[in-house]
Amino acid sequence: MSNGLRERKKRQTRAALIRAALELCETKGVEAVTVADIADAADVSRRTFFNYFATREEAILGSGADRSERLVACLNERPAGEPAWEALRAAFATFLSETDEPQREWMARARLVRANPSLLDQQRADFAEMEQRLVAGIVGRTGEDLGALEPRLLVGAAVTTVRVAVNHWIDTPSDIALADAIDHALARMAAGCGALATPIRNP
Amino acid sequence: MSNGLRERKKRQTRAALIRAALELCETKGVEAVTVADIADAADVSRRTFFNYFATREEAILGSGADRSERLVACLNERPAGEPAWEALRAAFATFLSETDEPQREWMARARLVRANPSLLDQQRADFAEMEQRLVAGIVGRTGEDLGALEPRLLVGAAVTTVRVAVNHWIDTPSDIALADAIDHALARMAAGCGALATPIRNP
Repeated sequence: MSNGLRERKKRQTRAALIRAALELCETKGVEAVTVADIADAADVSRRTFFNYFATREEAILGSGADRSERLVACLNERPAGEPAWEALRAAFATFLSETDEPQREWMARARLVRANPSLLDQQRADFAEMEQRLVAGIVGRTGEDLGALEPRLLVGAAVTTVRVAVNHWIDTPSDIALADAIDHALARMAAGCGALATPIRNP
Repeated sequence: MSNGLRERKKRQTRAALIRAALELCETKGVEAVTVADIADAADVSRRTFFNYFATREEAILGSGADRSERLVACLNERPAGEPAWEALRAAFATFLSETDEPQREWMARARLVRANPSLLDQQRADFAEMEQRLVAGIVGRTGEDLGALEPRLLVGAAVTTVRVAVNHWIDTPSDIALADAIDHALARMAAGCGALATPIRNP
């Protein structure tokens, strides 16, 4: 099998496992769904499941250590000399182009997360981990100190923008692709977020 | 008792409960500390404890619903016509001027949070709640739609900045007051975070 074909098959299996996890959770309830259920529904072995996800929760959230590693790899693929924010923006764009989940799956996930505190905790932990890894990736490229304030602010702003954009996109169904919604939000944030200057009124 | 005196006494009791909670957790371990232990150590009744905090975790984290309400009140006290970001910055400054925790308590809390996943989950939930309340506060003042992207980005950036600034301040002990560190970080973020333009290098 060629490398490209192997990668495509892996993405398909991963997407099938996520789809199965979301569908089972929506019909049976999160607590009742087991790894075996998900593997069966996606027509793979349990062992194959664990090649993709360490836990049931990771399959539901579509997260996992290899995902944040891949995101950092997307950052490392950016050319030297590119401004850090642009590099982050491009890394997210490449990363998202490799997953192509329909909006209905994102919305199903959002419903599950909002109704299950343990999933919400896990999702917040995933974002925090993504942020830590990107800070390490950025300081590795900009030569700043790992403890410095600015790369932490920069990456914090980027990850927050992605989180806000995903939630906004879920809350306001439209024909816009998620990748475009995220890219738009990152551009707005970089432009200083016009709202910075929006005057407040009397309470 | 005058209003000012009453407020001052309340702040002192609250600070004493937080100090007692942190000290007990550091000596006995988080799981072993009860609300009764904290109330006893602060020399108040259990009933008084619950006037300040709903749970043991809130006392350890110094959080609670009244704190995020107070932060939103600080925002509402800002004059009409002020740019939203400046209003948020001033609201955080006023809010922080009313709590005066020494850095050693923040560091003790950070140690506890990093070692106890349930405290970390709770702290993340607190930041998320603060963010939601501030979004509602900002859209109430700017007249934007509650579902709009920009106020969510604006507040997301502000809360992220505060979170990053607190962690950075804990990680790099100095003579700088926390309120000043947060104000500096908010100013850096508003200035576009110089790092936006920092070029990355070869990986």
